[in-house]
Formats: sequence, structure tokens, C-alpha cells
Amino acid sequence: MSSPRQVTFEITAECPVTRARTGLLHTGHGVIETPVFMPVGTQATVKGVPQDHLYDQLGARIILANTYHLFLRPGHEAIRRMGGLHRFMSWPGSILTDSGGFQVFSLSELRKITDEGVRFQSHLDGDMHQFTPESTVDVQLALGSDIAMVLDECPPYPVTREYAEVSTRRTVAWARSAMAHYREKIRALPTRHALFPIVQGSMYADLRQDCARELVDLDADGYAIGGLSVGEPRPMSLEMVELSEPLLPRDRPRYAMGVGMPDELGEYVARGIDMMDCVLPTRNARNGCLFTRAGKLIIKHSRYKEDQGPIDPTCPCSACRTYSRAYLRHLFQANEILFATLASIHNIQHYLDIMREIRQAIRLGSLPEYLHARRSIENAADSDLE
Amino acid sequence: MSSPRQVTFEITAECPVTRARTGLLHTGHGVIETPVFMPVGTQATVKGVPQDHLYDQLGARIILANTYHLFLRPGHEAIRRMGGLHRFMSWPGSILTDSGGFQVFSLSELRKITDEGVRFQSHLDGDMHQFTPESTVDVQLALGSDIAMVLDECPPYPVTREYAEVSTRRTVAWARSAMAHYREKIRALPTRHALFPIVQGSMYADLRQDCARELVDLDADGYAIGGLSVGEPRPMSLEMVELSEPLLPRDRPRYAMGVGMPDELGEYVARGIDMMDCVLPTRNARNGCLFTRAGKLIIKHSRYKEDQGPIDPTCPCSACRTYSRAYLRHLFQANEILFATLASIHNIQHYLDIMREIRQAIRLGSLPEYLHARRSIENAADSDLE
Repeated sequence: MSSPRQVTFEITAECPVTRARTGLLHTGHGVIETPVFMPVGTQATVKGVPQDHLYDQLGARIILANTYHLFLRPGHEAIRRMGGLHRFMSWPGSILTDSGGFQVFSLSELRKITDEGVRFQSHLDGDMHQFTPESTVDVQLALGSDIAMVLDECPPYPVTREYAEVSTRRTVAWARSAMAHYREKIRALPTRHALFPIVQGSMYADLRQDCARELVDLDADGYAIGGLSVGEPRPMSLEMVELSEPLLPRDRPRYAMGVGMPDELGEYVARGIDMMDCVLPTRNARNGCLFTRAGKLIIKHSRYKEDQGPIDPTCPCSACRTYSRAYLRHLFQANEILFATLASIHNIQHYLDIMREIRQAIRLGSLPEYLHARRSIENAADSDLE
Repeated sequence: MSSPRQVTFEITAECPVTRARTGLLHTGHGVIETPVFMPVGTQATVKGVPQDHLYDQLGARIILANTYHLFLRPGHEAIRRMGGLHRFMSWPGSILTDSGGFQVFSLSELRKITDEGVRFQSHLDGDMHQFTPESTVDVQLALGSDIAMVLDECPPYPVTREYAEVSTRRTVAWARSAMAHYREKIRALPTRHALFPIVQGSMYADLRQDCARELVDLDADGYAIGGLSVGEPRPMSLEMVELSEPLLPRDRPRYAMGVGMPDELGEYVARGIDMMDCVLPTRNARNGCLFTRAGKLIIKHSRYKEDQGPIDPTCPCSACRTYSRAYLRHLFQANEILFATLASIHNIQHYLDIMREIRQAIRLGSLPEYLHARRSIENAADSDLE
């Protein structure tokens, strides 16, 4: 049933204490060092950051784009005709796309889920559309994603056991349909792709485990753990990863979708996660929340009005090298576009630097010490700097 | 009465036919080749464009900042305490500031003009403030502008002859007070500055000429021609420059404030103008209007939906080198921040390239031919590209 893998993963180091490992993910658009954090480029742009800066200066090698948004605008067929998403947006690195399911559930006012798929109304113009397990594979192949996701249902938290069972069963069935369709389709394609199924099950341990076991039978190129960061307490998200991950094949990449805060990145990695994505670094940046070694910095605070230091003196990003907190505060207060760009650059640098440190700690065998030190800092700097 | 000049101007070439010349303007923050177009950085940022890109990639050497905005936020004393505007915004080049008068007249709801100055209400928080000829010099010296402007009154168009007379007389009196105060103040300063009076007179030829003659007596470092682009027909703006300019000293830089469209730049230069500024390249950029060799390109038009060419194939800017019209249109339609950045970069490159061409044409003695060719193109490409 399985084809030769087109996107491959090799483990390069393992933590002797935790479940963490470093690896190399080989895609048609380069090699990605894992564990990796993927900045989110919802509409084919990581908001405010030019592609060359993201690749050359920040060192990002893979970003996430949202199928739902690109399907609606400019349309996947238009992107296909223009040579695919990489070419359309001039991004030299790799791209992972979600299936669009999560956005249907979070952005579309009207939607109806059946076993066939989900019918929904565009949040842009009210037009009705349908996503099926097969169609979302087709859309993502039109986009040319290096790594595509199966259509899944991501229920909110909390949800009844009964609904979670129905929903998880549907997610597994959709994964089977999607994978069969995908394997058929990629035979004809010269390009390299991967399709990851998504472990769901809400916060029910046994449903998560059953789901993981069934998806493993699909022998996929990698596995995602979804349905996290949907409102549940943070320890519960980690627990769901902890109990699903050991069931997933050790030699495939594992992707925790939509996580997390800077202090959580290492925690997920310690639980065997290789890939993460989150809108937090860019969304918080636009809202004036900057991440630093010493905790969060809320730039609007008046204490920064004449602060001539950089956001974070240890940060090598262009915002920290060039501009003061006082200037950045002024840009934020004056609602200037440049603030969003500089703040996003800084927060992405912060996230990617954490990932570099984590990879280094795993290679050196010092991840437990790294996590311990990090937990102490985070506890000490829960709120804004003082 | 006059001090040794701190900002000097040397003419390096003159057009044998028109009044155009090339020159070098020496300020405390570098040497500027003239004729020059100054991008507008109202709130200490050229909207959407990082300073290093503006200086290194686009080659801008002088920008304009607005005294009114910076006086209100973050405040000129705060900027002085932080080492001045150049340091505050990390801009290595020169800065020209307006006097704030124009913004008081255009942005403030409540204002009262007397011979002493103008009282006005902040558009930000409703606080009352006052600008006098002396105080606006002090504010601009606190900012550390290389080139400051005297407080002037810029009446709308049209205005009665009677009002224009009163207003022009006041502008001249203010220029005298400002210049006396400035000369007193700069004695104590180690930094290099210039103060330009502003020729007003609405669209009355004799008032303009009287004003110019009276201001020449001040023996200033340079002269501005204000009150243009306030609603009058374009030929009238050029005519006002044409009749004021011959009265101004040939060895001082002349600055036409707030102009103009790409096709007008050479026309002003041919009438003896050395410096110009305008929000058009950046404001139009944000509104989706891109300037090209072939005319204006309105990016939202559906004809660009799958257009894989650059904005302008002859343009060396990073937007044209990297991204397609289709991608830029997508960013614009999706209201993405990156559009404002890329479009502003392109339009500024277009303006600065025109200025480079104009300077080259003057040096080669071919400005008349250049203007002739340019007029033909502009007539042929009045609207959007076809």
C-alpha cells in the first residue's frame, strides 16, 4: 500500500533522559533541522516580514500556510497555474499547509459537518464551499505544499465524550480516505510531498490513544497531534501529547499543531515533538507584546518612553541591533506599520533562537538542565519586565 | 547679521536652456546630491520602510519629518533627551523638518492665528498648544533637524486677495522673528543647522514676488516655496514657482514644498528647484497605486490576478526583483502589511530613480530632451496600464 517516501526524516541525536531528539527533515525545498518552529504565513505571507528577511536573516526554513485562506483567495487553481505557492510567494524554503479544517471551524459562521466532509460559508463573501478528505488533498497538491495535512475535525474544549467519540471516528475515517486519495494522486506528480494524519480525541486519553493506533496503520510520512490549544488547561495539552506520542512510530516526524508559548516549546520537544507552529510570535508582536530572555515586554508601558536600550540586549535581530525600546514604543503608539514588521522580526528571532538552543541542548545531552533553567526563568518573569 | 553658513550648497552643473542645476548640499549628516526628492517620514518613520532599506537599498540621503506630529508625540524634549531625532529613529542621513504650521492648518480642528503665532488643539487628545515663530525654531533645534523651516501660514486655495495680503505679511514678519531667534540660538550649539524661510502669497503673482524679495533680505541658507499643491490647478503651481524663483539667490538651495507627481519633478527642476518632498509615493503605495515607467498601475485591477511579471520590469527595487504583480495584488486584496512595505519601497525607488535621471540629464546637458520625452510618455499613459 505504501509508496517510497518523498519527504524523509532522519534522527541525528536523542536525549538520554527525555523523549526529545534532533533530526533532519528532507523535503523538495531543502533540509530542515528539527525540532523546528514554523512561523505562520496564513495568507502566503508571514505578516509584516519580507520573505528574504525571514529566510536569510532569521534563518527560517519552513513556514506554515493556511489552506482555507488560500483556497478562498487567491484560489488554489490560480496558484497552481502560477507554478505553486513557493513560486507565487517567492519563498525558497519548505511549506507545510494545514487542511483548512481548523479555519472552517473557527472562521466560518455557517458550517455543516457530515461523514462526507464539511460544507461552509466563506467568511469573505458568503459563498458556500465544501471540503472533503479528498478535495483538501487536491487543494494542497495544487498549492504544492511540501507537507500537507489530512482533513480533520478539531472540536472545541470541552466537548462531551459522546461527541468526541463520533468526531474522532470521523477524523480517522477521513484520514484513511485522504491517504488513499493522496497515494493515488502523487503517482502522477514529479514533485515531492508528504501527508500527515492528525491525532484527535479531545482530552479523552483513551480516544487519543485509539486514534493514534489507527492512524499508525496508515504508515504515513509523519504524524500531527491536533486539537491542542483550543481552550484546555496547559498541563492537559502536554498530557495529551505525552500519552499519544509513544504510540507513534519513532522514525517519523511528530508535529504538535498550534503550540505554543516560548516556555512551552522545550516541553513539547521533551515529549517527543519535532515540529510546532503558532501565530503567537507574530500576533503578539502586532499587539505590542515582545518576548525576551527576561520575560514578556509590553511595549506600550510608559516606563519604555525614553528607554534607549534594545528590546532584548542578547538578541541579534535587526530590530534589536538598530532600534531602541523608546523608538519602538513610539511606533506602536503612533500605529505605524514599521512597528509590526520590527516586532514580528524580533519575536520570530526569539522563537527560532529558542529552537536552536533546544537542538544544541539535545545534541549536548543537556536538555533536562536546559528545561530546568528555563522553567526557573519563566516562573520568575511571568509578567512584564521590571 | 549673518553667521557663517553651517549647511552649504555648491552648484556642480547648470542646464544651458532651463533654470535647472545640479548641486551638493553639505549637512552635518552627509552630502546630498541635488535636485533631490525627500521621502516623507511624518512620525519619524517613512511609513512601512525600515531605515536601513531606505538608506542602503534605495539610496535616500535626506528625509522629511513633521514637527507638528513629533511635537505632540513623543514630544521634542523627549527626543532631545534621547540625543535628537537622527539617533531616536536610527537614521544616518539628513533630516529636514517643516515648521508644523501646515499640519496645524490641515489637521487641527480648532486653531486661532494671531500675529504672535497660532494656538491649536491637538488632533490626538484635544490639548491646546501654541506655535510661535520662535517656539517652532526651538522645537526643530530640539529635534536636531539639519534643515528647519520657519513658521508660515499656508492659506487654502482659493483665498481672497485681502486675506492673502494679510497672511503673506504675517509670514514675512514671522520669518524675520524666526531667523533672529534662530541666529541667537545656534551660537550655543555645536551641531550644524540651516533655517529656510518660505515664500507664500497664494496665487497672486505680485504677492509672491514681494514676499520673495523681502525674504531674500534675510540672507538665509536656503529658500522654500510653500503654499503649493493646496488645490490650485497644476499649471498655476508651476507658474508661482516660475515667477518667484528668479528673485531668490542663485547660490542657495530652493525647496518646493509638497510636490509632486512623478511627471512634475522634472518640471519643477527645470524652474530652478533643488529640493522637493511629497507623501504621494508612500500614500499612493498604501492605496494600491504604483508608479511605473509606463504610467500608474492600480494593483487591485483583476487583470493583474495572474500576472507574473514585476510591477515594472525596468525597476531594480526589491519588490520588483522578488515578487509578481499577482502576488502583490493578493497581498493588497488580503490587506496584508507586507503590501504597504513593498509598494512603498517600489514607489520611492521610482521617485529616486527619476531624480537620478534628472541629475544625469542636467550634467549631460540633455534636460530639455529628457523633459520632452517624459511629457510624451505621461500624455500617453495618463491612466492605468493597458
